[in-house]
Amino acid sequence: MTTAVLYAPRDLRIERRPIPSPSEGEVLVRILSVGVCGSDVHYYENGRIGEFVVRSPLVLGHESSGQIVEVGEGVSSARVGERVAIEPGEPCRRCDQCRAGRYNLCPNIRFHGTPPVDGTLSEFVTVMSDLAYKVPDEISDNAAALLEPLSVGIWANRKAGTEIGASVLIAGAGPIGLVTTKVARAVGATRIAVTDVNRTRLSAALASGATEVAVAGSDRIDGEFDAFIDCSGSSRAIAAGVQSVRPAGSVVLVGMGADELTLPLAMIQRRELLITGTFRYANTWPTAIALTASGRVTLDDLVTGEYGLGEVEQALNSGRDPHSIKAVVRPALGHTEIAEGAEKKGERQTAR
Amino acid sequence: MTTAVLYAPRDLRIERRPIPSPSEGEVLVRILSVGVCGSDVHYYENGRIGEFVVRSPLVLGHESSGQIVEVGEGVSSARVGERVAIEPGEPCRRCDQCRAGRYNLCPNIRFHGTPPVDGTLSEFVTVMSDLAYKVPDEISDNAAALLEPLSVGIWANRKAGTEIGASVLIAGAGPIGLVTTKVARAVGATRIAVTDVNRTRLSAALASGATEVAVAGSDRIDGEFDAFIDCSGSSRAIAAGVQSVRPAGSVVLVGMGADELTLPLAMIQRRELLITGTFRYANTWPTAIALTASGRVTLDDLVTGEYGLGEVEQALNSGRDPHSIKAVVRPALGHTEIAEGAEKKGERQTAR
Amino acid sequence: MTTAVLYAPRDLRIERRPIPSPSEGEVLVRILSVGVCGSDVHYYENGRIGEFVVRSPLVLGHESSGQIVEVGEGVSSARVGERVAIEPGEPCRRCDQCRAGRYNLCPNIRFHGTPPVDGTLSEFVTVMSDLAYKVPDEISDNAAALLEPLSVGIWANRKAGTEIGASVLIAGAGPIGLVTTKVARAVGATRIAVTDVNRTRLSAALASGATEVAVAGSDRIDGEFDAFIDCSGSSRAIAAGVQSVRPAGSVVLVGMGADELTLPLAMIQRRELLITGTFRYANTWPTAIALTASGRVTLDDLVTGEYGLGEVEQALNSGRDPHSIKAVVRPALGHTEIAEGAEKKGERQTAR
Amino acid sequence: MTTAVLYAPRDLRIERRPIPSPSEGEVLVRILSVGVCGSDVHYYENGRIGEFVVRSPLVLGHESSGQIVEVGEGVSSARVGERVAIEPGEPCRRCDQCRAGRYNLCPNIRFHGTPPVDGTLSEFVTVMSDLAYKVPDEISDNAAALLEPLSVGIWANRKAGTEIGASVLIAGAGPIGLVTTKVARAVGATRIAVTDVNRTRLSAALASGATEVAVAGSDRIDGEFDAFIDCSGSSRAIAAGVQSVRPAGSVVLVGMGADELTLPLAMIQRRELLITGTFRYANTWPTAIALTASGRVTLDDLVTGEYGLGEVEQALNSGRDPHSIKAVVRPALGHTEIAEGAEKKGERQTAR
Repeated sequence: MTTAVLYAPRDLRIERRPIPSPSEGEVLVRILSVGVCGSDVHYYENGRIGEFVVRSPLVLGHESSGQIVEVGEGVSSARVGERVAIEPGEPCRRCDQCRAGRYNLCPNIRFHGTPPVDGTLSEFVTVMSDLAYKVPDEISDNAAALLEPLSVGIWANRKAGTEIGASVLIAGAGPIGLVTTKVARAVGATRIAVTDVNRTRLSAALASGATEVAVAGSDRIDGEFDAFIDCSGSSRAIAAGVQSVRPAGSVVLVGMGADELTLPLAMIQRRELLITGTFRYANTWPTAIALTASGRVTLDDLVTGEYGLGEVEQALNSGRDPHSIKAVVRPALGHTEIAEGAEKKGERQTAR
Repeated sequence: MTTAVLYAPRDLRIERRPIPSPSEGEVLVRILSVGVCGSDVHYYENGRIGEFVVRSPLVLGHESSGQIVEVGEGVSSARVGERVAIEPGEPCRRCDQCRAGRYNLCPNIRFHGTPPVDGTLSEFVTVMSDLAYKVPDEISDNAAALLEPLSVGIWANRKAGTEIGASVLIAGAGPIGLVTTKVARAVGATRIAVTDVNRTRLSAALASGATEVAVAGSDRIDGEFDAFIDCSGSSRAIAAGVQSVRPAGSVVLVGMGADELTLPLAMIQRRELLITGTFRYANTWPTAIALTASGRVTLDDLVTGEYGLGEVEQALNSGRDPHSIKAVVRPALGHTEIAEGAEKKGERQTAR
Repeated sequence: MTTAVLYAPRDLRIERRPIPSPSEGEVLVRILSVGVCGSDVHYYENGRIGEFVVRSPLVLGHESSGQIVEVGEGVSSARVGERVAIEPGEPCRRCDQCRAGRYNLCPNIRFHGTPPVDGTLSEFVTVMSDLAYKVPDEISDNAAALLEPLSVGIWANRKAGTEIGASVLIAGAGPIGLVTTKVARAVGATRIAVTDVNRTRLSAALASGATEVAVAGSDRIDGEFDAFIDCSGSSRAIAAGVQSVRPAGSVVLVGMGADELTLPLAMIQRRELLITGTFRYANTWPTAIALTASGRVTLDDLVTGEYGLGEVEQALNSGRDPHSIKAVVRPALGHTEIAEGAEKKGERQTAR
Repeated sequence: MTTAVLYAPRDLRIERRPIPSPSEGEVLVRILSVGVCGSDVHYYENGRIGEFVVRSPLVLGHESSGQIVEVGEGVSSARVGERVAIEPGEPCRRCDQCRAGRYNLCPNIRFHGTPPVDGTLSEFVTVMSDLAYKVPDEISDNAAALLEPLSVGIWANRKAGTEIGASVLIAGAGPIGLVTTKVARAVGATRIAVTDVNRTRLSAALASGATEVAVAGSDRIDGEFDAFIDCSGSSRAIAAGVQSVRPAGSVVLVGMGADELTLPLAMIQRRELLITGTFRYANTWPTAIALTASGRVTLDDLVTGEYGLGEVEQALNSGRDPHSIKAVVRPALGHTEIAEGAEKKGERQTAR
C-alpha cells in the first residue's frame, strides 16, 4: 500500500508498505478521507509540538474516515463493508482517568499521528473496532473524517456549558473556531459572536451560525457573554475575551500557542469565572454522528481542497492560502476522480 | 376596568373593578394576551386542584403579556410603554429555596390564578417590576404570553438534561408536550419521538420538531432513549415510557393527573434511572425570550383561537374541540380587532 | 486448591480444583478473606436472583482480599507479594457506558459470584491486575474484603449527594445500611437517622455514626431530610422515607426486594424530588482505601464471625442469628488459626 | 450606643450614636462578638481595597454574632432573645444572579464594613431578619461570629469539589487557610497538605486537620492533588500549587493580593484543569451552623485575643504578632468580663 511518511521537517516521503493485518479486536480500514489539521502542519514544518518530537519516521493524519475491509478475531464479520469514522486515540482503558470516563486524559493513550504512533495518511490502517464508528449514508466521506474536528467543537461547548439562549464569544475562525460556532448554534445559543483577523474566515463564521462577527483588535464587541471560547491561541484575544465574560461565566481555552496565560486575579475572583482548557475530547463521536446525520451541523462546507496521497505536501501547504479552510487527502481516489469530485463540489458550492 | 371572576365551578362573572395602583417596586400592566391553561379550565370546572381550593372569588390566568402603563416608587419611569411578558409567581426571596435559586419551590410563593391569588384575566394588573420582562418586537403579544408554557418546556428539558444529539421520548402532545418538543429540538436533540392518542396533536408535534410520532397504545416505538418526559399524566404512558429509557437515562414527570406512580424497582436500580418531577420553573424567562426572539422556537403557531374578555367562558371551553391547541384571551382588543387579528393569522398560516 | 461450589439450592460442595494460571494482564491472588453477602445467601438458598439463575456449578463470593502470588504477561513482577482488595466486576471497557465512566452499567460486565461467573470462595483466583488494588498495612485482611460493601455505601452517598451539614435518613441497618451510615458520617452529614426493626442493628447503627435511630413502624422521626437512602428493600420503609424528604431532596434506592415501587406523583412533582436506584458502584476503591486507611471509616467492627473454607455453609447460615452482622470466610487460615483470630478479635472488641 | 468609626487611614474614633430602630423585616441585634478580618485591617491601614474606597466615615466589621433585642414590623416577636450569627451581605434578591442562587455575585449587594455600608463594630446593628441565623447553645458567641470565615472555607471547598478520600493542597495557613483545612477535613478529605512561611501557623494547620505541612519555598511536597486551594494570595504559591494538581483537578483562588495570575496554558489544557476564584459565599450559614454545633468543626481554638470596643485599634494591630491568629472584639463585655473570659479561655486551652 501507499503511505506518506514524515522523516524530518519538510522531508515527507511517499512509500510502499505492506498492508497491516487486523489483530484481535481490530478492523482493517481502507482510508477514504483524511482531514489535514494544524498539528499535522506543525509536525511537518517543525518536527515537533512541545514535548512531542518526531524521532523516527512518522505517518501523520488523525481526522479519518474509511471502509472496513477485514476484521480481526472477535469482531463480527458483518462489519466488513461498513463505512466508518475513526476516533484517533486508543486509551489504555485501565487507568483511573479511563475508568472515570475521562479517557482523553489517559497518560497511556496512543493517538494517531502523534509521535511515535503512526497516523492515517495511508491507504489502509488497523484500529480497534470500537474506535471505528459506522456512519449513515447522510454523512459523506469527508464529513465522516471531519467528525474529529467537530468533536473538538462539541467538547469545547460541553466544557463551556453552552445552552439554549446562551451568549458565546468565540475567538478565532479557523476550522476549530468554525466547528465550535456550528456546535454553539446546534446547542441553541442565540448570541454567537466570532472574532478573527481574517475577513474570509469571518464570512465563514457567519455561514457557520455566528450571529455577529468582529475583526479582532479593531471592531468592538459589546455586552457580557455567558462563555468565552478561545480557538485562536492568541494572548491578546484571550486577555480581551476574559474581560467579556459575565459573573459565573466560563472561559474555555482550546487554541494552542501562547506559552503563558496572564489573567487578572481580582476579576476572576470577583466574578467567580470558571476557566479551563481542553485536551482532545471524550465520548463525542455518537453525538457528532447524530448532529451531522440529522443536518443540524454541516461539515462538507468546510472542505476547500481535496488531494491525493501523492499530493500530501500540497495539502499540508494549502493553509497558506487565506481562503483555505480545510484540506482533505483522499487516498482511495485516483487523480481523475479527485478532479471530478472537486468539480462536483464546485457545483454544489455554487448552488448554495 | 373589566375582569373575569370565578365564583364557583362554572360560575364565572364579568365584573368592573377599580384599576389597581402599583405599590413600591411594582408596575401596572395593561394586559394584552392571556393564554388559557389546563389548570384554569380545571379550576373553572371543579373549583379546585388538589389542595388548592377556590374559597373566595378568584381571577384566573397566569400566561400573560401586556404593556407597562404606570410604575410604582423605585421603578424607573423609563419602563412606561414597555411591552412585557409576565412571570406569574412572586417568591418570598428570603427562604432557603429562594436563596438557593430554586424559587419555584418557595413555600410562600404567590402565583397568579392559584387560590387565593388573583390572576391576569383582567384589563390591568400590578406585578413586581422584575417579573415583567421586556420583550423585543420579534415576539408577538400572544407569543409573549406563551413564554409561560414555554418555560415549562424549558424546565422539563433542563431536568431531563436534554443535549445535542440526544434522543427524547415525550408522552402527550398537548400544549406542554408541544413546547417541550420545541425546546428539545432547540437544544439539539436529534431523535424526538412523541406519543398521543389524538392524531391532530401528533401532526402538531411533527410541526413542532418531533422526528417521529406514534399513536399511544397502538403504535410501537423502538429503541432506547436518553430521556423520557411525560406531559400526559397518564399512568399507562408513564409505565411504558419508563421502560424505554437507557441505563443512566432520565425520567421527568411533568403531566399531572395520576395520583400514584407505580415503578419497577429492580429496573430503576439495574439501569440507575434518574426520576424526577417538575413544579413550574425557575430562571427561564431570559432563555424563553432569547429562544423566541431568535426564531429558534415559534409560539404563535400554537394559538388556535383568540377571545375577548367577555368570551372567557368560550375560551375555557374551547379545549373540547380536538383541533384546539391553545386559546388566548385578549382583554385589550375589541371584538372587531380580534376578528381582524384572526384573519391575519389565517393568512400567515396559509403562507407558511 | 480447595474451592466451595454451589451445585443447586443448598447443595454446596467443597472441591479440589487446579490452581488457575494468570493470563496476560492478570494476577493470581491467594484469597485471604471473603465477606458473605446477602446475595450469596440468596443464591445458596434459592439458586437464583431475579433473572440471574445458577444453571451450572458456581463458586460464590465477591467481597474479597488476598495476596498476589503470581503475575501474568504484561504485569510487573514487583506486584508479587502485594496485599490487595479485589474489585469483583470486570467490565468490557469498550461499550458506551464503560467509556463514559459508568462501567457498573456495562451490559457485558463479568461479576464474581454472579452466574455464570465464578466468585472467590476459593484458595486462589485470577483477576485483571487493575482490579486488584494494593492496600496499606493499616487495612486488615477482613477490612480489605469489606471495601466491597463499603463501595456500595460510597456509591449510595454519591448518588444522594450527601454533603457536609446534610441530614440523611437511612432505612435498614444491615451491613449495607451500616456502611452507608459510616460513609454519611465521613462525608460530614450532621443528622443521620437510621431505622430498622432489629434493635441490635440499631445499636450497631449508633456505633457506626447514626445521630439517632428509630424502630421502623413504631418510633417516629420528625423533620425533613436532604436525602433518604433505602437499604431495606421494604415497600413500607420506602413509602415512609419518601415522605420525609425536603423539596429538591433526593431518594436513593439501594435495597432490593420490593418488586414494584408505588410513589406519590403529585408530591414528587411539588417537591421536585430526585429519585434513583443504585447498581453496584464505579470508581470507588481508591476512595474506600483512603477512607479506611485514614481511619475515617472502620470496617473490622462489622465482622461478627470468621469461618474456614470448610465452613462456608455455616457462614452462609450465620445471618439467622439476629446478632450477626457480617460473616467472613478466610480460606488461607487453618482452623486453629481461625480460632485464635476469633479470640484476638474478642479481645479487641472487649478493649474498645 | 458606642461605635468604632474609621475616618481615614489609622484615624479610628470611638463615637456615641443613637441606637438604630429596626425597619420592616429587620431585627435589632446587640452585638456579642466581631471577628477582625484582614480586610478590616486593610481598610484601617490603607483606606481602600482596590476600587472600594473609604470616602466617608465607616464602621468596620463583618464577622458578627449577637442577640436579638427588638424586631421590626413583620418579624415574629418570638425572635427577641435569640442568639444569632449574622450573614453580612444583603443582596437585592431581584437580579439574575440573586434569582439563580448566586447572590454573592449580586451587583447591588450591601455588605457590612465595605464602603459605603457600615459594619458591626458597634453595640447594636439592624439587619434583615433572614440574615440573623439562630445559633444553638453548642456554639459560643465567638464561634457564631466566626461562622463568617468558616463560610469562606465552606465555599472554597465547594468550589474545589472536595470529597471523601480526596487530596487537597492548601497554600496559606492564616485564618482562611485554617478554616479551609477544617472544612476539608470535615468533608472527608484524607490527604490535606498545608504550606505557609510561618511555622506557628503550620502548627495551627496540623491542629486544624492538616495531614502534612510544609514550609513554603523550602520543603517539598510530593504527589498530585485532586485540588489546590490558594489562601495565600502569593503569586509564587499559586504557581507552585497549580503544578501539583492532577489531570481534571481543580484550582480555587481564595487569597487576594496578586494583581495578575500567570498560568501555564499548555498544562491547563493538557490536564484540563478547572480554575476559579471565590468571592465571599452563598447559602453557607446553615451548613456552618450544622458543622459547628455538631463539633465537626471547632472555631473557638482560632481566637487568640479578645478586645473591648474601646480596644478596636489594638485588635486591628494584633495581627503583627506572629502568634496571633484571630482577634475578636466583644462590644457587650466590660473590660473585667473580658479579662475573665480570657482567663477561662486559657484554662480551656490548657485542658485540651
